[in-house]
Amino acid sequence: MTGFTARDPDFESRVRASFANQSAMASLGITIAGLGPGWVDLSFSVPDGFTQQAGFVHAGVVAAALDSACGYAAYTLAAADTDVVTSEYKINLLRPAVGDSFVARGRVVRPGATLTVSQGELTAPSGGPPIAIMTGTIVHVRRDSPGS
Amino acid sequence: MTGFTARDPDFESRVRASFANQSAMASLGITIAGLGPGWVDLSFSVPDGFTQQAGFVHAGVVAAALDSACGYAAYTLAAADTDVVTSEYKINLLRPAVGDSFVARGRVVRPGATLTVSQGELTAPSGGPPIAIMTGTIVHVRRDSPGS
Amino acid sequence: MTGFTARDPDFESRVRASFANQSAMASLGITIAGLGPGWVDLSFSVPDGFTQQAGFVHAGVVAAALDSACGYAAYTLAAADTDVVTSEYKINLLRPAVGDSFVARGRVVRPGATLTVSQGELTAPSGGPPIAIMTGTIVHVRRDSPGS
Amino acid sequence: MTGFTARDPDFESRVRASFANQSAMASLGITIAGLGPGWVDLSFSVPDGFTQQAGFVHAGVVAAALDSACGYAAYTLAAADTDVVTSEYKINLLRPAVGDSFVARGRVVRPGATLTVSQGELTAPSGGPPIAIMTGTIVHVRRDSPGS
Repeated sequence: MTGFTARDPDFESRVRASFANQSAMASLGITIAGLGPGWVDLSFSVPDGFTQQAGFVHAGVVAAALDSACGYAAYTLAAADTDVVTSEYKINLLRPAVGDSFVARGRVVRPGATLTVSQGELTAPSGGPPIAIMTGTIVHVRRDSPGS
Repeated sequence: MTGFTARDPDFESRVRASFANQSAMASLGITIAGLGPGWVDLSFSVPDGFTQQAGFVHAGVVAAALDSACGYAAYTLAAADTDVVTSEYKINLLRPAVGDSFVARGRVVRPGATLTVSQGELTAPSGGPPIAIMTGTIVHVRRDSPGS
Repeated sequence: MTGFTARDPDFESRVRASFANQSAMASLGITIAGLGPGWVDLSFSVPDGFTQQAGFVHAGVVAAALDSACGYAAYTLAAADTDVVTSEYKINLLRPAVGDSFVARGRVVRPGATLTVSQGELTAPSGGPPIAIMTGTIVHVRRDSPGS
Repeated sequence: MTGFTARDPDFESRVRASFANQSAMASLGITIAGLGPGWVDLSFSVPDGFTQQAGFVHAGVVAAALDSACGYAAYTLAAADTDVVTSEYKINLLRPAVGDSFVARGRVVRPGATLTVSQGELTAPSGGPPIAIMTGTIVHVRRDSPGS
């Protein structure tokens, strides 16, 4: 779907295990809807206690879902003994997040051994114009490394 | 503290009322530590259910706190009959968010009637090097306006 | 090509006249390769005096071309009596800008009367993987307005 | 001035030699006004052929100056056998760039062996409110390395 090849044949179980360890994803009801080399789709409904004044889903949930989609898209292409950390992202909140449920799609734009750049897009489950878009830089770190 | 003057003398009660309506802030235990014309400080402890794999606070909480601090800093300078909406932000996650509690400071860099630019910084309560920094664009909309 | 409709039927001559007034575009040899409602393509060769140490085109030229492509894409959809000003952009320099000539494509992602969000992509003239990507916020100002 | 220590005692001559190799800086008349561990100040006057329609300096010059200031600020702290490459930046153009000459200041916010984050600010030579601000990510690469 993205033209990339995973260097770790077990990338899917590695990604799913890491995702399952993120308590924030469970707390917000965000789940993996699909994944492959260079891409991850997450889906979620508006979580209780995370609306803003107009009753729409809070931007923080949108950002957390897109950040995870971008980071895990990078992680599908990573070496087996590495972790990923978001270094930075930019998000544009384009339209009110009207609706009950959403899909956050993360796609790798430029893979790398040290840095990967991903882009994310939030839409309704049926598609339509993007509600929010993200571009992020993800750093690959050797597991138990002291950092970059 | 920032050299700005609020055009709405009741800005403080307006900001506090809007903040109290954000269920996400209550759900994450984020509170207002202080505010004035052009600035807002928020504080929070690591909320249950929002850690990442290493036990640190999830980046989504950091981003939500900084986004709110930047947005409400803009809102302190807004006209009385307006709301604020975040149009976009960039966040850099500079260091691991080690610690039990944090302060998210938002400061207006360039106020405007239509657009305000704010910057945010997350540190330990005692200060020290920034854990994360944000630059965001906030749009001022007339209340009940159909959008920009 | 983008599904947008121009509100000003004379958008093309308005865009071309504004572009012709930008001395920086002439100084860098950047020209309009094509345009339509919601999109502008610019093309250029490496300008003399704008290489970096390895002989590649300087990132400043890449940024200026993408910024113009994004801004003029927004301007194709603008009202007749308005100008556009870039409020902010993020650029990711993904790959070395190897080559003699380039195309900078700007596309509107979210049009608006006050703010438009555009995305840009720099590639070789024949296409291929993106060399740089941009997301920018463009402000529409009434001509002779004192600013936002 | 920034609290950082250069690991390469010859950082100043290394930075000045690299800067002198950037033909774009000479073409735009941008010069080094000062530098130290973790910071670089550049200065320039409006270059001929780089104004926009209102006669102000073109945003592309502002971006190129801030990008260089941020990148060379990172380079002051780099190891002797390395180069720096800008991975991404965000710029906010806050106010019209009224004036004949400007200072672009780059400051390291978070140094690293692989990635450094810098912030930049453009003002009049006498200071005053920022005309533009930048946050950028700079990658350190070993000289003659094939990239990240």
